[in-house]
Amino acid sequence: MPYHFADRMAHAPESFLGTLFAVSGDLDIISFAGGLPSSALIDTEGIAEAARLVLEEDGSEALQYTTTGGYLPLREYIAKRYRERYGLSATAGEIRIVNGSQQNLDLLAKIFLNPGDGVGLEAPGYLGSIEAFSLYQPTFCPVPLTETGPDPDIFEKTLRDTSCRFFYGIPNFQNPSGTSYSDEARRHVGLFARETETVFYEDDAFGELAFNGRARTPVKKYAQEYGIISGSFSKIVAPGLRCGWIYAPREIISLFDIAKQSADLHSNYLSQKIIHRYLTTTDLDSHLRRVVGVYERNCRLMGDLIDDMFAGELIHTNPEGGMFLWAMLPNGIDARALFEAGIKEQVAIMPGTPFYVGNAGHDAIRLNFSNACEEEISEGMNRLRTAFDRCR
Amino acid sequence: MPYHFADRMAHAPESFLGTLFAVSGDLDIISFAGGLPSSALIDTEGIAEAARLVLEEDGSEALQYTTTGGYLPLREYIAKRYRERYGLSATAGEIRIVNGSQQNLDLLAKIFLNPGDGVGLEAPGYLGSIEAFSLYQPTFCPVPLTETGPDPDIFEKTLRDTSCRFFYGIPNFQNPSGTSYSDEARRHVGLFARETETVFYEDDAFGELAFNGRARTPVKKYAQEYGIISGSFSKIVAPGLRCGWIYAPREIISLFDIAKQSADLHSNYLSQKIIHRYLTTTDLDSHLRRVVGVYERNCRLMGDLIDDMFAGELIHTNPEGGMFLWAMLPNGIDARALFEAGIKEQVAIMPGTPFYVGNAGHDAIRLNFSNACEEEISEGMNRLRTAFDRCR
Repeated sequence: MPYHFADRMAHAPESFLGTLFAVSGDLDIISFAGGLPSSALIDTEGIAEAARLVLEEDGSEALQYTTTGGYLPLREYIAKRYRERYGLSATAGEIRIVNGSQQNLDLLAKIFLNPGDGVGLEAPGYLGSIEAFSLYQPTFCPVPLTETGPDPDIFEKTLRDTSCRFFYGIPNFQNPSGTSYSDEARRHVGLFARETETVFYEDDAFGELAFNGRARTPVKKYAQEYGIISGSFSKIVAPGLRCGWIYAPREIISLFDIAKQSADLHSNYLSQKIIHRYLTTTDLDSHLRRVVGVYERNCRLMGDLIDDMFAGELIHTNPEGGMFLWAMLPNGIDARALFEAGIKEQVAIMPGTPFYVGNAGHDAIRLNFSNACEEEISEGMNRLRTAFDRCR
Repeated sequence: MPYHFADRMAHAPESFLGTLFAVSGDLDIISFAGGLPSSALIDTEGIAEAARLVLEEDGSEALQYTTTGGYLPLREYIAKRYRERYGLSATAGEIRIVNGSQQNLDLLAKIFLNPGDGVGLEAPGYLGSIEAFSLYQPTFCPVPLTETGPDPDIFEKTLRDTSCRFFYGIPNFQNPSGTSYSDEARRHVGLFARETETVFYEDDAFGELAFNGRARTPVKKYAQEYGIISGSFSKIVAPGLRCGWIYAPREIISLFDIAKQSADLHSNYLSQKIIHRYLTTTDLDSHLRRVVGVYERNCRLMGDLIDDMFAGELIHTNPEGGMFLWAMLPNGIDARALFEAGIKEQVAIMPGTPFYVGNAGHDAIRLNFSNACEEEISEGMNRLRTAFDRCR
């Protein structure tokens, strides 16, 4: 090999995305495989109007370099929402803007993980976290996820008996499972993380997509100075603007600033100003009600179709928000084989395997319900039933 | 300490930016310290019109998730310019879009550098590269920069006698010095890098800002499969859009994709579409002629004022493009002391120290000439003269 690459690159997990991209160009395929919010529900007109005003009134500043931390009024907006909606004592000084919340995974791993250090995560867990963390060569400490949160005994054991001082979880409408932590689990993991001086990294990309519109108590309320919350405008406003944020104690923020500045100086300033303008001139809560109304109908429809059409052979979670539903396969059906069979029937699902560290997840699939309309969901489930039968 | 941070964070160099930011809010200060292109020369109206058209015709796609590699028509535009302007055989498959070219520093370090690996760089060198590379804990191999390129003997010795297989340089109008590699130096470093299987990372953030408008031969022409070029729209279109690119061989691109996807999934899609629309509906070369016309006048003015006012006490480089000029201080004047004295006189300069690994650069300053008008340059140099005298 002519190039001398760093050892860490050999730790990248096999990516399933190549396979997915190969089929994503085929418009005849109904896809439940991706993780896209509904394009139809993005307020393109509202965002275009915000962009027009920003560029007209403030263009020369919005197009110039800015500070690493991010646009202060946007950080103040975010902090205020944490105070008012979640009862947390957030200030703008604890908020930083990033290029979509995926960047938090990379930067926090950079700040916290030496090679070999333990990193706790849910099993199944978000595949983007596995990919990002892997390049820091940690020791993964997966904790099985139940319908109400990480298995409490294994969670305690992991934090008590291993070197793991950094735990990553998605308490609300998890990707991939769609499940949420119970109130008791939030309290338990938060208090136990704090007690063991373990940072609890709470990815809340989906918290605003609760079907009932209610805010759930963040784990940070209990983890306190050991709690970090990662947020995203991708599901609230639009993903293409690549705008997310981190909410963390100042001691962590000061290192975060170093990592962020080295990584890309600062996030897109125009996008930050557009989003701020949009949020302050739009009724966000009413926009979100419209979005989750559609997502809830899609989710119920998909769940009902599974119940009707698979008669107990597929056991699925019952998400109360978010964009994903998780289904367990019966013995004898392998998730990757079902994926292949699905492609032949022109329906794409996501096998469970990339959501696990190591060789697991062959017995489950993830289904996205946010990016297909009701007709597509019905037709897609028909096709999945055919593919399922071909896997026997 | 309650948090368990990664060891790499202790390797971050002391940042001078805190000090700079503390003074940057003071509008009475004339600043030659920063690295901003001229706000007045950003085509805000043209970009606003491009944004309007993109959002009107293509908004729902531009606001959705997209591919990690970047917007294909933009990558094709970039590849075409390499073919037509530089005679390189670039294809879109060798181009990837990033959040400003600073991100290339982070991602390439991630791909190439194990802790302890040698990384070659110019001395003085771009401070953002020192910051980004430091977090990967390499062994820095600085090569003194002459007026015509890296010292050839030390360059050869470094690549021949050390483990350094990765060299970072800025052949055109370097930051901080303003100097450029001679044709002979381009040929020599490119061929020698290739001969020693060393990747030559050619940061070309300023190549389009040649005062005479002419393209210089890229080092990659000689380094070939060992050549990587990093490009940026920050100085060509606008920095706030955070859009740059990498041009690298496909074997490197395939690892770059893994690193980029883990780091932030993809770059801002709206910005990519705006820039592409802008570039394909504007006469870029005539826009650039206007920009470099102003920068050249500013640069000559600053150089002439130094010659007139400091009578040989400040020896400066004579850039043929870019945004920076470098001046050597006489014995007895320390760059940090001059910075402090300058602030008291309401003029900001950049001490040479952050551009070196280790304790050097006390005998030089960097002056930015792109972000001040002629009156500010004249007045600022008067103030610098006063500050200079106070340092005696």
